[in-house]
Amino acid sequence: MTNSFHPPQRTLMGPGPSDVSPRVLAAMARPTIGHLDPEFIRMMDEVKSMLQYAFKTDSPLTMPISAPGSAGMEACFVNLVEPGDKVIVCQNGVFGGRMKENVERFGGQAIMVEDDWGKPVDPAKVTAAFAANSDVKLLAFVHAETSTGVMSDAKQLCQIARDNGALTIVDTVTSLGGSELDVAGWGIDAVYSGTQKCLSCPPGISPISFSEKAVAAIEKRETKTPSWFLDQKLVMGYWGAGAKRAYHHTAPVNSLYAFHESLVMLEEEGLENAWARHQLHHNALRAGLEAMGIGFLVEQQYRLPQLNSVMIPTGVDEAEVRRRLLADYNLEIGAGLGALAGKVWRIGLMGAACNKQNVLLCLSALENTLAAMGADIRTGKAIAAAESAYS
Amino acid sequence: MTNSFHPPQRTLMGPGPSDVSPRVLAAMARPTIGHLDPEFIRMMDEVKSMLQYAFKTDSPLTMPISAPGSAGMEACFVNLVEPGDKVIVCQNGVFGGRMKENVERFGGQAIMVEDDWGKPVDPAKVTAAFAANSDVKLLAFVHAETSTGVMSDAKQLCQIARDNGALTIVDTVTSLGGSELDVAGWGIDAVYSGTQKCLSCPPGISPISFSEKAVAAIEKRETKTPSWFLDQKLVMGYWGAGAKRAYHHTAPVNSLYAFHESLVMLEEEGLENAWARHQLHHNALRAGLEAMGIGFLVEQQYRLPQLNSVMIPTGVDEAEVRRRLLADYNLEIGAGLGALAGKVWRIGLMGAACNKQNVLLCLSALENTLAAMGADIRTGKAIAAAESAYS
Repeated sequence: MTNSFHPPQRTLMGPGPSDVSPRVLAAMARPTIGHLDPEFIRMMDEVKSMLQYAFKTDSPLTMPISAPGSAGMEACFVNLVEPGDKVIVCQNGVFGGRMKENVERFGGQAIMVEDDWGKPVDPAKVTAAFAANSDVKLLAFVHAETSTGVMSDAKQLCQIARDNGALTIVDTVTSLGGSELDVAGWGIDAVYSGTQKCLSCPPGISPISFSEKAVAAIEKRETKTPSWFLDQKLVMGYWGAGAKRAYHHTAPVNSLYAFHESLVMLEEEGLENAWARHQLHHNALRAGLEAMGIGFLVEQQYRLPQLNSVMIPTGVDEAEVRRRLLADYNLEIGAGLGALAGKVWRIGLMGAACNKQNVLLCLSALENTLAAMGADIRTGKAIAAAESAYS
Repeated sequence: MTNSFHPPQRTLMGPGPSDVSPRVLAAMARPTIGHLDPEFIRMMDEVKSMLQYAFKTDSPLTMPISAPGSAGMEACFVNLVEPGDKVIVCQNGVFGGRMKENVERFGGQAIMVEDDWGKPVDPAKVTAAFAANSDVKLLAFVHAETSTGVMSDAKQLCQIARDNGALTIVDTVTSLGGSELDVAGWGIDAVYSGTQKCLSCPPGISPISFSEKAVAAIEKRETKTPSWFLDQKLVMGYWGAGAKRAYHHTAPVNSLYAFHESLVMLEEEGLENAWARHQLHHNALRAGLEAMGIGFLVEQQYRLPQLNSVMIPTGVDEAEVRRRLLADYNLEIGAGLGALAGKVWRIGLMGAACNKQNVLLCLSALENTLAAMGADIRTGKAIAAAESAYS
């Protein structure tokens, strides 16, 4: 016989999932009701409205996809890319590569614009790619690269796309709720995100939003979307603005309770206050790490406050450090992905996990562990440096 | 400001979601941990093993998809159907139609075998379809049609497919955990289900399993699967048997806690005992409904105990009945779908909702409501009839 599972109580400071507030966990455990129950429909309307606030858009086509962020990405590409379409895809980390996979699997032609991992997307290269290719339908890029901790200039990149008559697909999985994002103001046409980063909700839901222009492009498709589950024309029948909701698939009822509560908490805090909180604690963490002699992968002006890619001290067995942090402090930090594996750790300060206690825990635990393993770091300075960043 | 959402406490006797046990809800609210945490990996292994028990298969390719049952369906079709493939699709309700959509969206050719809604799939027609078409790759059918409450003979249909060298895709969304299902014994090659029916877990996860032959077919695909999220070659890197789990997407951690607990409960009860419990309470519900003069859509030998499609008494405003049941008794029953809208109600007896209290509540509430609305039913007999079915 298998026993019930009782997870340890971790502090989640990796690249996501982040710590989930007890309020959100409590919401998730409320009694399940039907996905067509009038009370559930009322809750869905509130989710849509709060999500519009979080994304900064009035678009009625703003809703959560019933699956994780990867499915949100796929929902954007599968609906907007038709066979033969040209898509400029910017790659400066893992997730740009996944975008390329999406374009190609749906029959599109991916025109790659590459930048080093840890650098932002270079707008000049994007401009050049438009100049070198005619009839580009879409520009796709990652706003906040979870694999590197770098922020690209979404506003400027969207402007370039617009100047060239192209639509935009933007990955905001790690930026939503953590740093400035203005979907309507910047003119993003298709945006997707995740719940398990700066919204501090368990993973499993992907919020998305489409602009009017994106909807028009979907409506004039000549081929059927090669997915039934993610076909937005069908999903809209359930999440749409009409009074009558048509059954499409069974919504993940309890996951949506949790998402609703995380959005209520964002509304209570205020979007701009949430952005400022992420910056504040990032500043303190950075001061502490630098006092220890640990540097950052990303130049300061492009750094995401919520995801800190820091250089692993020379000669340290990085997996053993993470293993000890988990075993001795119940603290999770992230490994490097792809080209950055073994070179950086990814320290998240996302959502509910972005607070002073966690900054101090992380600095203390990392310093103790690295010192015990004989790493070349400065000790005894980090906590004071972090404290002074707060004052 | 939006308030936290507090759902009413319903009794869910529709076509799903069904009532969720407090044990499962409590599991869902346990602290989120990382999707690559060693403790989480251990829990995933337990989920796989218990799911093999529930499906009755030893296949290592047995795992939950991180999205609802519709995505489980899509995972089977998108991996197994290549452009030009011939697929015999049996349609005797809503979900066979969705299978056809899947086949066609992935470039396959759907050869339809149609039966009336409320009738099982006719094996003779399937045999005839194989005789009339060469090189059929797949036979797809629904074991337990949620839209009609009819059970088809999966064992016999799989035998016909095997005799004709075809693989099978079988929808067991409503049968898993509620009535006999023997994936390995019957030779099902690709099977998908949902969590929100007889497993009594919140919706959002779709358990699937592939046979060795199905895996071989996926491995020799000539084209890339037109989905990144559902590409089983990639998903297996995370859910696979290897010691090292490769990141594919962020698993829905808390939803999997809940699913784990629902499988623990199934193991405690015993699979065959769970099937017998569904039959027992169906017998009592049926006795009560018949005593009221309410008949069934489906002939007795093909009826699903867990989903009862019952004929709406003549002249009754069926939507008003459902509205009153919800308002006065917090009781949800389901409307008819598609061709059966307005003709039947669908009364679920699934998982944790399948118990004597619910049978008696449903009979009482329905009798009181119908009598108050002047419907032509017999009163005062139903409860005694149900009770005598139990004795």
